[in-house]
Amino acid sequence: MSWHAVADHLPRLVISSGDPAGVGPEVTIKAIAHLPTGVAKCIVVGDPGLLKQTARALGLSTPTQVEPVGKATHIRTGELSKEAGQAAVDAVKRAVDLINEGKADALVTAPINKEAIRLAGYPWPGHTEMLADLTHAGDVRMLLTSDRLRVVHVTTHRSLRQAIVAVTRERILRTIELADEAGHMLGIHQARIGVAGLNPHAGEGGLFGDEEQNEITPAVNNAKQKGIDVTGPWPADTLFWRAVNGEFDLVVAMYHDQGHVPVKLLGLDAGVNISLGLPIIRTSVDHGTAFDISGKGIARWESMGTAIRVAAEIVRRRQASREL
Amino acid sequence: MSWHAVADHLPRLVISSGDPAGVGPEVTIKAIAHLPTGVAKCIVVGDPGLLKQTARALGLSTPTQVEPVGKATHIRTGELSKEAGQAAVDAVKRAVDLINEGKADALVTAPINKEAIRLAGYPWPGHTEMLADLTHAGDVRMLLTSDRLRVVHVTTHRSLRQAIVAVTRERILRTIELADEAGHMLGIHQARIGVAGLNPHAGEGGLFGDEEQNEITPAVNNAKQKGIDVTGPWPADTLFWRAVNGEFDLVVAMYHDQGHVPVKLLGLDAGVNISLGLPIIRTSVDHGTAFDISGKGIARWESMGTAIRVAAEIVRRRQASREL
Repeated sequence: MSWHAVADHLPRLVISSGDPAGVGPEVTIKAIAHLPTGVAKCIVVGDPGLLKQTARALGLSTPTQVEPVGKATHIRTGELSKEAGQAAVDAVKRAVDLINEGKADALVTAPINKEAIRLAGYPWPGHTEMLADLTHAGDVRMLLTSDRLRVVHVTTHRSLRQAIVAVTRERILRTIELADEAGHMLGIHQARIGVAGLNPHAGEGGLFGDEEQNEITPAVNNAKQKGIDVTGPWPADTLFWRAVNGEFDLVVAMYHDQGHVPVKLLGLDAGVNISLGLPIIRTSVDHGTAFDISGKGIARWESMGTAIRVAAEIVRRRQASREL
Repeated sequence: MSWHAVADHLPRLVISSGDPAGVGPEVTIKAIAHLPTGVAKCIVVGDPGLLKQTARALGLSTPTQVEPVGKATHIRTGELSKEAGQAAVDAVKRAVDLINEGKADALVTAPINKEAIRLAGYPWPGHTEMLADLTHAGDVRMLLTSDRLRVVHVTTHRSLRQAIVAVTRERILRTIELADEAGHMLGIHQARIGVAGLNPHAGEGGLFGDEEQNEITPAVNNAKQKGIDVTGPWPADTLFWRAVNGEFDLVVAMYHDQGHVPVKLLGLDAGVNISLGLPIIRTSVDHGTAFDISGKGIARWESMGTAIRVAAEIVRRRQASREL
């Protein structure tokens, strides 16, 4: 595959600009403005008037390709509303359509607001669940990455009580398999996967809980039998340190905060969220709508910039593997 | 108070050298050898023969003050045994006695092995619980510190299921009060305390669990009424980042791994464990017996060194406040 062949297939990314009252349009415009040429073509889904106005206020160019969705007439910057929630959902739906119509290769999402989504009448606690529904995917997982740490979560948006109930060998095995696939997607040949325990000291041999013995260890053994390079359950309090220091390529976390605390501690702006188990490629910022700073021009675009670059890399890698 | 007065009251620390088959004797000898003069007088409780032999193998001096306990005749380096567990318990008991007899000002503990303690017939899952029993203390908490982060835990050594059950407003309020006292102990005038949520996004307004609304928020409000500078519950995945970046002096974590993951990620060797709610001052290394490297002379003594320095500082601060 020559460089020219790659250039002919510049990854086409569709970016849903998120809740129009939040920082989504701003970080989208900033990230595209800072994107080096030759990385990707970006189609932004959102309200053209709002995007133009936001770009002008920032002194930046309006995105060249805009797919018009959700006129933000009754929406005020920084304010929670069902109208904004509806516009955010419409943008994601249209973005998924564009991929299904063959007009884009991958989806990058700006932040939505869960409460606004609920006000608009939808049940989804987050993007991942929404996308699972919209694409008829079964079992999805969240991969959260920073420069130094990559974590796949057995569950994310549910109470800790409910998260413990979901620590089952089937669910863990599927998570390990998706982590292994994620390794390939990210260009790691045979990813070394470390699985966290649920309980302190990974249960201390059964003294502090039995999920390690009954659920996690059997899942790890099954995954090993399938040829995956996986070990655990390891005590969480040293596992993330070991991963950051090079011992593991990917960590499987048993619940949301177990994985999110270490990734965000290493860099609040650098994180990217990648959905695993969807039929489409999707990356996302790992921050929220930030209504408190929306419209002030001070939102940091680094996470959106990384989400765009990672999506483009995944598309290129997939193109390359098809052309081999 | 003059410098000479301080020198007259050099903090007297008693160090229990831990499980004799583990790295405790080694890190104790190394830390004392590296201790600058004028910091503290150290009394080491352990088997004099083993301490002498370990010091000789390391090419370091035998500690000058040894309180003989637990002759390690049938104990093999790196091997789990009830004899070693018994010797470790005996050392802690003797150390507590020395403090009660007025012969030492504070306790520093080297690692014990929970399984060895259990084999020796004791019920304690860790030092903290053992010391609570030995000193007839009621409600104790673990403060884990690194250079950049200090975390007090609502619970530590129990399954995550049991930890959730213990997330009650009474227990959280007591933890916040002990965190505030810890601030004074560490020389922070009015510590700014941030309290973590239990659930993802601190419950997302009740969507992902109700412990924030029913237990944590009432506890935080009670603590505020008592004049403590405390806020929360905050989403855990950004709270630790905010604390490390200077917004909080102390964090209250709802369970073991919530606090241990971020502290250890910041530095596996630098952590110190301080017991809160005991009638005695007690600090500890935050690592285990490390049987796999015991006897090889390669154990890192930094955590023990910091535990000794922190204990000495607390004693000095208490002496100074008494003399004012």
